[in-house]
Amino acid sequence: MNDDNKWHRSHILGLADWQEFEYNILLSTASSFREVLSRATKKVPALQGQVITNLFFEPSTRTRSSFELAAKRLSADILNFSPSSSSLSKGETILDTAKTYLAMGTDIMVIRHQHSGVPHSIAAEMDRLATGVSILNAGDGQHEHPSQALLDLFTLCSLIDPENPKIELLYGKKIVIVGDILHSRVARSNIWSLSKAGVDLHLAGPATLLPELFSQFAPGKITLHRNIDQALENADYIMTLRLQKERMSEHLLPSPREYHQYYGITRQRLAHCKQGVKILHPGPVNRGVEISSDLMDDETYSLISDQVNNGVAIRMALLYLIGTLKG
Amino acid sequence: MNDDNKWHRSHILGLADWQEFEYNILLSTASSFREVLSRATKKVPALQGQVITNLFFEPSTRTRSSFELAAKRLSADILNFSPSSSSLSKGETILDTAKTYLAMGTDIMVIRHQHSGVPHSIAAEMDRLATGVSILNAGDGQHEHPSQALLDLFTLCSLIDPENPKIELLYGKKIVIVGDILHSRVARSNIWSLSKAGVDLHLAGPATLLPELFSQFAPGKITLHRNIDQALENADYIMTLRLQKERMSEHLLPSPREYHQYYGITRQRLAHCKQGVKILHPGPVNRGVEISSDLMDDETYSLISDQVNNGVAIRMALLYLIGTLKG
Amino acid sequence: MNDDNKWHRSHILGLADWQEFEYNILLSTASSFREVLSRATKKVPALQGQVITNLFFEPSTRTRSSFELAAKRLSADILNFSPSSSSLSKGETILDTAKTYLAMGTDIMVIRHQHSGVPHSIAAEMDRLATGVSILNAGDGQHEHPSQALLDLFTLCSLIDPENPKIELLYGKKIVIVGDILHSRVARSNIWSLSKAGVDLHLAGPATLLPELFSQFAPGKITLHRNIDQALENADYIMTLRLQKERMSEHLLPSPREYHQYYGITRQRLAHCKQGVKILHPGPVNRGVEISSDLMDDETYSLISDQVNNGVAIRMALLYLIGTLKG
Repeated sequence: MNDDNKWHRSHILGLADWQEFEYNILLSTASSFREVLSRATKKVPALQGQVITNLFFEPSTRTRSSFELAAKRLSADILNFSPSSSSLSKGETILDTAKTYLAMGTDIMVIRHQHSGVPHSIAAEMDRLATGVSILNAGDGQHEHPSQALLDLFTLCSLIDPENPKIELLYGKKIVIVGDILHSRVARSNIWSLSKAGVDLHLAGPATLLPELFSQFAPGKITLHRNIDQALENADYIMTLRLQKERMSEHLLPSPREYHQYYGITRQRLAHCKQGVKILHPGPVNRGVEISSDLMDDETYSLISDQVNNGVAIRMALLYLIGTLKG
Repeated sequence: MNDDNKWHRSHILGLADWQEFEYNILLSTASSFREVLSRATKKVPALQGQVITNLFFEPSTRTRSSFELAAKRLSADILNFSPSSSSLSKGETILDTAKTYLAMGTDIMVIRHQHSGVPHSIAAEMDRLATGVSILNAGDGQHEHPSQALLDLFTLCSLIDPENPKIELLYGKKIVIVGDILHSRVARSNIWSLSKAGVDLHLAGPATLLPELFSQFAPGKITLHRNIDQALENADYIMTLRLQKERMSEHLLPSPREYHQYYGITRQRLAHCKQGVKILHPGPVNRGVEISSDLMDDETYSLISDQVNNGVAIRMALLYLIGTLKG
Repeated sequence: MNDDNKWHRSHILGLADWQEFEYNILLSTASSFREVLSRATKKVPALQGQVITNLFFEPSTRTRSSFELAAKRLSADILNFSPSSSSLSKGETILDTAKTYLAMGTDIMVIRHQHSGVPHSIAAEMDRLATGVSILNAGDGQHEHPSQALLDLFTLCSLIDPENPKIELLYGKKIVIVGDILHSRVARSNIWSLSKAGVDLHLAGPATLLPELFSQFAPGKITLHRNIDQALENADYIMTLRLQKERMSEHLLPSPREYHQYYGITRQRLAHCKQGVKILHPGPVNRGVEISSDLMDDETYSLISDQVNNGVAIRMALLYLIGTLKG
């Protein structure tokens, strides 16, 4: 490995341009942190004195808690910005808010926003001003949610080789992403990482939520399905997506019950898959909609707890890699 | 004392089944922590690296702050979950939320919920899954609020013997609990601890808020009163309860003014009690309703500040005892 | 310097009675902390084990974050009280809330309230009870916002002599405060500090927002202007104030557009000022209202980022000086 293969990325905005070696540095770092988390003392002083600010313009307790815990276990100081009690209602722009936290001394900003591209705009401005501040996209509109796709990747690779998770391990595996692909930033980020891994990638969902254009994301590597049972044929892993209730009122979807009938993952449908198939979901799950309730709780199949658990280690790894880049 | 008399309890759900020796271990531990809190450096590294999550489905700044400070003084890391910005509105069950925080690496969950029994259900699930996670009930519906009753006990025992607070010290004392007994989880927890202590226990309140059945909690040890002045005769301590304004609209109560006239604690009413009588209240007080405003501020009688102060020490002791059980 | 010139102030309520030597102790302490903040490890253990409670009855993410970060960098423990989820809605008085946090073990309370005088009342009660607790006013009604004026002072003095910022450096400088003087607690605090510094102080704004009486704050040292261009003649520094949108609906102000036309700071208007003029704003800025958008982003003129940055150092200095007074 030459110097070009060292970690160099200061922002984590999306996975579209990630190289194989970057995935592997991250997976290996996350693996070390998972080992730290199994010890009696689960903290390391790696980012002591650094300030990590959570700028969650779109509220999320779950993802924010995961980043917060990752930051605490690296001994960083955390500031939480939430829009409800903010000055955004006072006419300040998002960039002004980011610059305020920059001026206070923030080293890394973790940003979630309902509009695609906001973390990128802030990162561009931070670079233009030569601030040295790193931006980590925690979900922007329908664009990307890189840390979620990375924890999914980490979960799958760790399943195959817990000691030495590498992206190559997924080569040729059949993975089916099921649900509202159109509106899902999780799906988009997963498509980038899984196609880079050489996965045999299948997307399944109702026509309204899965336009033809998705096959163009990684030409020749993606197959689209309207029929879930055909999609699941011989599948190694199933990634289910959260169904937003709003899609119903927009008439893009029938009722939750009908959705479950046509696209919900049930024990019966698992019969189409390979022996040992596993199910992922980014959470929170609508029980009995994306997955049948009993299947969700069956750890023979469900990787949901592993995902949440690995989420802390992946976020520690991301914060650590971008936070120690400067040193 | 044999091995059976060591601390063994991993969840703090309610006081109904607490033994005398458990109360005394807790009181003695809390007493040590109160001593720590009087030093210049008020922190101990006891729970360093452990994660304590506050799951407050029913909001409460005061109790949450007390637990948060207790956790910080034990050097634990704290996550705060609040329902307003949560995924509960997204269709996730309470148990799913708890499992998410479990998977993130939570060691102790402090749970408050408007429905009775929620902490118990979560504790049962944590045990079924052999997670090793401890649950601490911070108030569930109208059921129990153990940490409040324990700080009340600690406050009273410390008054009698500050160096060596023991539950036996309250034997034979006359304690009157006044107010909305029916809806009070604080009253229920106090009834368990005080009857175990051998207190001469009296309950006073309007018939709508004090059904006959309460005398059955500890048969032969509890006397019910409609008339406050008779109840206060020769009382050693008075425990007032917070009046919920909602009870008025439910026609269970007259106006606050009338309540104060019939059941409010005033200087005049103190004349019925023993010399040196003291008044407790779990807070926040409706001034001039449960207690007359001037009496509330008179530290000759009011133990309210002591209660809040002892609350941090008691919660440190609870977190410490369940947090170090595993080690 | 004799012993009378040592730091003695335990509350920071307002600047009306501050002496020159106090400003200089603070500026010099803040300067040391700014140096700490430029190191790799940005934390000091000065207030380890002390508890700082943010009581923000009026919400403010920006100022609260600044105090929170200052407290964390001094290694203190922080509790946040916010009224939305508080017991204030339950009929408790503000003083009762403060006493609750006192009883929990708070050492310093940082208080923001929409009504003038609240921090003073709480400070008086803390002193009456001989609690030793310090109060820091983070903005009360239209009265004072001392930490903002102090960071403004620190920013200006540091501009002239970064190594040795002293209040004397501003003697004879012409400073113009522009905007809604009437309702601004920032303006009031700045008038006290700048008039003490011997600044040639000018206030400019529409008649509805700048009553004659303001010239009486420091008789002979303050000039009032209706015309901004005359006010800016030969100015060294311009302090703009945030315009509250509410003032429009109260008919005290025309539209934001008209305000900008008559009182907004633009490149054109800077021509009246001295070469090297600088602009301050307490933030958040209404872009294109108080200042033209391009000027706000031009660091040749704008000191806004410096103000936010110096805010953390000034607040560390304030917390440090009052926090170590007891030791």
